[in-house]
Amino acid sequence: MASEFERIDRLRARFASTPVSPAVQLGIGDDAAVLAPSSLPQVWTVDTAEEDVHFSRAFMALEAIGYRAFMAAASDLAAMGAQAVAALSALVLPPTLSEAELDALAEGLARAADTCACPIVGGNLTRGQALSLTTTVLGACASPLRRSGARPGDGVFVTGPVGGAALGLRALKAGVDGFDAEKARFLAPRARLDLSAQLGLYASACIDISDGLAQDLGHLCRASGVRAEISLECLPLLDGFAENAAQLSLDPWELALAGGEDYELVFTASTAVPPELGTRIGRIERGPPEVRLSHAGAPFALPRGFDHFR
Amino acid sequence: MASEFERIDRLRARFASTPVSPAVQLGIGDDAAVLAPSSLPQVWTVDTAEEDVHFSRAFMALEAIGYRAFMAAASDLAAMGAQAVAALSALVLPPTLSEAELDALAEGLARAADTCACPIVGGNLTRGQALSLTTTVLGACASPLRRSGARPGDGVFVTGPVGGAALGLRALKAGVDGFDAEKARFLAPRARLDLSAQLGLYASACIDISDGLAQDLGHLCRASGVRAEISLECLPLLDGFAENAAQLSLDPWELALAGGEDYELVFTASTAVPPELGTRIGRIERGPPEVRLSHAGAPFALPRGFDHFR
Repeated sequence: MASEFERIDRLRARFASTPVSPAVQLGIGDDAAVLAPSSLPQVWTVDTAEEDVHFSRAFMALEAIGYRAFMAAASDLAAMGAQAVAALSALVLPPTLSEAELDALAEGLARAADTCACPIVGGNLTRGQALSLTTTVLGACASPLRRSGARPGDGVFVTGPVGGAALGLRALKAGVDGFDAEKARFLAPRARLDLSAQLGLYASACIDISDGLAQDLGHLCRASGVRAEISLECLPLLDGFAENAAQLSLDPWELALAGGEDYELVFTASTAVPPELGTRIGRIERGPPEVRLSHAGAPFALPRGFDHFR
Repeated sequence: MASEFERIDRLRARFASTPVSPAVQLGIGDDAAVLAPSSLPQVWTVDTAEEDVHFSRAFMALEAIGYRAFMAAASDLAAMGAQAVAALSALVLPPTLSEAELDALAEGLARAADTCACPIVGGNLTRGQALSLTTTVLGACASPLRRSGARPGDGVFVTGPVGGAALGLRALKAGVDGFDAEKARFLAPRARLDLSAQLGLYASACIDISDGLAQDLGHLCRASGVRAEISLECLPLLDGFAENAAQLSLDPWELALAGGEDYELVFTASTAVPPELGTRIGRIERGPPEVRLSHAGAPFALPRGFDHFR
């Protein structure tokens, strides 16, 4: 097996494909990376993807595992309306992981870093029982978007279709053919950093909905001290979503509201927004923090979101 | 079991004991933390402490596990000559870990954060098979100290006693009484952030020696393109170190040179340095990158450093 240092050299070579910005003064190879002074506030977060909790090698290629792990962290930068600056990648590798498998993992991480224009400038390697990827990302933003800025009268918007990734995951787990669009939503999500600049112009509050729209919107409501009213018929869905969910005997609304895994954002805004920024799905009202759902005017029961610890 | 969100609230409450600096605009509770603009270059690194690789619950309290994990990351900031700004803590928790055990882990993390004046402003919780702590730290520094600045004629210095932590670890593993100073070196190391400002004034190159003095100094020599000549009789050791090592049938030089786990620093400087900054242990010479050891004038064979992947 290659030594830790040989592996670090291989990873450094692979990660070098992502153009390094002027913000990066020193990358992989010293005791720490060095970033340039920042004239803007900086947004900073970390996310762990753990084997058999967030992904499974039984039905996912290592490249997709690396790609998703990176995007999950980057999505939190997008939710703050930030541009990505750089990332650190800390990997726990089982002793059985081959060099080719590590290369595939690195390929996924590097492709995601490229897509996000967010170079991986450092990290850590250690062995361990379970494969685990912890990605730290730093971004910059003139006015970071918080969860607490929603006000009565604001519209509620979502940046893209919901439920598709959760349905794709069920299809992958079940080993069924088809469901290509849904599987792609799960295997190759895109952190919505493409929307950061516009979000800064329009949004009053924002949150990543990776734990499920209803639960994450609930966090936004509690942080803002407001109620959200959501009309299910307004939710953007993939083509044929209800029929595809029915094929696997799944409830499309439960997937859309509580499935999670979509790296889309929910935000609030006091005005209309450009259509490419999001779809209006409801409005913010005065009242105790909660999410109220309706379908064709009738109240709809709220499914539980996914909590890793339950 | 408490939910993920209840646990995050408990951790947030515990970590709030570390005074938050003006550099922190937003801590735990949103999609990301927000740090103030920085007029200085920033130093950024991550370190993972993995159960049964870096620590064992068989002979370590959870508080010590948390404390050490944080210090290991902070030590890399010290090696760059930086002051700590803030940290993120990503924890993988086995389902069997109780709330009291999580509190103990958090207590150790929080005490280390206090000691380093480095508030924990965010993180991640997930369940997993093995307990794992990944700590990301950000620091600031006018001129980050690199490994590559050593020049022929420079002295080589170490900031404190070496080998003690490795001997303490062996004593803990063996379950023997005594060895209090050595056990404390292992269980409660101190990242040498207290020396950062002075290192910036004197050092030409610097590296953390957590993988063992000989191996880590080798990295510095390769980065600088120089040879280091080290006199073993100059190494600072704990009182009675050789006798204590002999009690466990261990070679004191192997512990001191390759044991690692001491969160001290090795640095080079072209002048004498204040005694509180470090002890001179050798000099830098022109020549192919290597570390040459001598004892009482005779060459000494170099033991191998610890590599997690071998």
